[in-house]
Amino acid sequence: RINGERLWESLMEMAKVGPGVAGGNNRQTLTDADAEGRRLFQSWCEAAGCTMGVDKMGTMFMTRPGTDPEALPVYMGSHLDTQPTGGKYDGVLGVLAALEVVRTMNDLEIKTKHPIVITNWANEEGARFAPAMLASGVFAGVHSLDYAYGRTDLEGDSYGAELERIGWKGEEEVGDRKMHAYFEYHIEQGPILEAAEKKIGVVTHCQGLWWLEFTLTGKEAHTGSTPMPMRVNAGLAMSRIFEMVQEVAMANQPDAVAGVGQVKFTPNSRNVLPGKVVFTVDLRTPSQTKLDTMRAEIERRADEICAEIGVGCSVEAVGHFDPVTFTPELVERVRKAADTLGYSHMDIISGAGHDACWAAKVAPTTMIFCPCVDGLSHNEAEEISSDWAAGGADVLLHAVLETAEI
Amino acid sequence: RINGERLWESLMEMAKVGPGVAGGNNRQTLTDADAEGRRLFQSWCEAAGCTMGVDKMGTMFMTRPGTDPEALPVYMGSHLDTQPTGGKYDGVLGVLAALEVVRTMNDLEIKTKHPIVITNWANEEGARFAPAMLASGVFAGVHSLDYAYGRTDLEGDSYGAELERIGWKGEEEVGDRKMHAYFEYHIEQGPILEAAEKKIGVVTHCQGLWWLEFTLTGKEAHTGSTPMPMRVNAGLAMSRIFEMVQEVAMANQPDAVAGVGQVKFTPNSRNVLPGKVVFTVDLRTPSQTKLDTMRAEIERRADEICAEIGVGCSVEAVGHFDPVTFTPELVERVRKAADTLGYSHMDIISGAGHDACWAAKVAPTTMIFCPCVDGLSHNEAEEISSDWAAGGADVLLHAVLETAEI
Ligand SMILES: NC(=O)NCCC(=O)O
Ligand SMILES: NC(=O)NCCC(=O)O
Repeated sequence: RINGERLWESLMEMAKVGPGVAGGNNRQTLTDADAEGRRLFQSWCEAAGCTMGVDKMGTMFMTRPGTDPEALPVYMGSHLDTQPTGGKYDGVLGVLAALEVVRTMNDLEIKTKHPIVITNWANEEGARFAPAMLASGVFAGVHSLDYAYGRTDLEGDSYGAELERIGWKGEEEVGDRKMHAYFEYHIEQGPILEAAEKKIGVVTHCQGLWWLEFTLTGKEAHTGSTPMPMRVNAGLAMSRIFEMVQEVAMANQPDAVAGVGQVKFTPNSRNVLPGKVVFTVDLRTPSQTKLDTMRAEIERRADEICAEIGVGCSVEAVGHFDPVTFTPELVERVRKAADTLGYSHMDIISGAGHDACWAAKVAPTTMIFCPCVDGLSHNEAEEISSDWAAGGADVLLHAVLETAEI
Repeated sequence: RINGERLWESLMEMAKVGPGVAGGNNRQTLTDADAEGRRLFQSWCEAAGCTMGVDKMGTMFMTRPGTDPEALPVYMGSHLDTQPTGGKYDGVLGVLAALEVVRTMNDLEIKTKHPIVITNWANEEGARFAPAMLASGVFAGVHSLDYAYGRTDLEGDSYGAELERIGWKGEEEVGDRKMHAYFEYHIEQGPILEAAEKKIGVVTHCQGLWWLEFTLTGKEAHTGSTPMPMRVNAGLAMSRIFEMVQEVAMANQPDAVAGVGQVKFTPNSRNVLPGKVVFTVDLRTPSQTKLDTMRAEIERRADEICAEIGVGCSVEAVGHFDPVTFTPELVERVRKAADTLGYSHMDIISGAGHDACWAAKVAPTTMIFCPCVDGLSHNEAEEISSDWAAGGADVLLHAVLETAEI
């Protein structure tokens, strides 16, 4: 078993880097805080005997050697970047639990045939640069490096420029590494495990996603002196699209969600009807059919809504992945590890996207979940118990040891 | 008659200060561009023989002496600040036409009994610091100086600090000046004069306004892993309020408008349901009864909408004025001037708010409108003809001369 106290201490230590305003973290991708968190993590890994590789997307790979120089490494990890008002565990738990697994192997002087690599994927959250899971997406060949470097934040700063600025652009070609397997341990970010009183989620699938960025073009005009019939109100069109998106999600229950987290009005002045409104619909479901039909319905009905008001409507897909099925052998290995350890478990579908979803395209991959309080995540109040944290890390240890071969 | 070419040249010269991105202006209150525009205007006024006074709100008063040292001055003016994506004439025309009136009086060596004061009111637009017409509101005793100094922009910078920073905080107590009369010339900002093919709008009233700033409190949560029934979606509540506001306005046609120009989501991340949504409803009508009943209906129904979703709802009135009736004698003087000059005219109610609305509380006041193309304002594409500009300035000259007594 891993050392739960040491894991918890590391979590609390990392949470001091890029603190939020309400007990959580604001350690967004490629900020100074991100650079500081990376340095802390690097120092811990090097103290645990690992050597660092960094690729051109800024992803960190910390290697513990194996006994067979020919054997492909077993990877495990997640991400250290957070939402602007993120929690202390989302991503971080998976990275630091992987470190704890290595520290435990050192304590017990366990040698493995396959090398072990702890991974900190860059820009998993996609909060600053859409889409989410950007670096793992380039790794899996889904995005080109140029596409990734060209992604911009709300200030117009690009991924490529910001990666150089913080000094974490590595030398390795992205995706050159071959993986024997990839394991990712994460908090559930939803309410299912807690409600079912299970300690471990054996993740079998991940639901698919579309991020549809709408740009509505209205007519900038005075809110006081422009008569109602003369208005070309892009804000009104937006509100009807929000309501319609809600309707489409509710018509596809229980296994679909849709909502909007980001909105930008231009010029965003109280007495100017907006000339431009940009917002992103986040649509997810584990069903490939629903993913396609819901997207089509939302785009079609948005066009109708805008046409009725005379507002221009264009849509860009700024994020997408199809539903994922994780590798059955590894899923079974996780299930078995939980059984061996005597931890209650259940099979579960991931509601959130993870780097594992892209890794699954290029390597045998699976995930482990632990519960989180009230299913709350992407909120500074995100909480887990140290007991939950340790449970999943134990399962990770066992599954990885079986895969890396002692 | 005034010199239309000279007026137009000054308008084009001022438009070079704080240029926008599409042919208009971004010369928002208390920015460096505002300070630069003030200096240019000051130099022009001083060249025309005026002396400057500046009050503690930053309003500029440029005085041309009269022949009777006891006589109260006749004031005329408007504002030089603009929206973030504003036009070249909104406000600016009224200030520079007043300057053109003084220049014309100089050319013709006209002396008046009453001194003449050209006024550039600070923060008329209210785009950066709500409410609009802030300095004239303090002048009229509607707001305290402390209230005004404490108003903040979206970055959290205060009016008081920014006024000091740009170096335009004057010595005069705000509102100490007594006015014989106040005239404001402005573009209509609506479509009525152009449609009726009238050169002059004789402004008899101004509609009343409420700016209702809503703060909705939802639950920040992951857009992917939070099931629909667990969401406390403040963005959805907002969209229903937008639709309801539109309904209330449409039920009160033709003499009412309502809409939303400013929205802020927090944390504004694509994969986080917003924890907080702030937006401002701009509601206007010339009817005092409707102003009150519409406000009450909007607040009541917003409460119901939020209660149904479980979202918290609070409302702050960040701007308000009751409908205004301008001084009948001055209105008649404007009508007569237009007749004398042979300019087509019609009576009109102002859709926008103006400093004249507050001045009317402390002095005999009225306004003059000229048409604008397509009724478009608060848009960089705002346009007028030089002929329209000159027509209203002629009317201003005549009405002011009659009031200031030759
Ligand atoms: N796990 C997680 O929150 N990832 C961010 C990408 C997503 O929105 O699912
Ligand atoms: N004239 C003008 O646009 N003033 C700004 C205040 C308002 O919104 O009416």
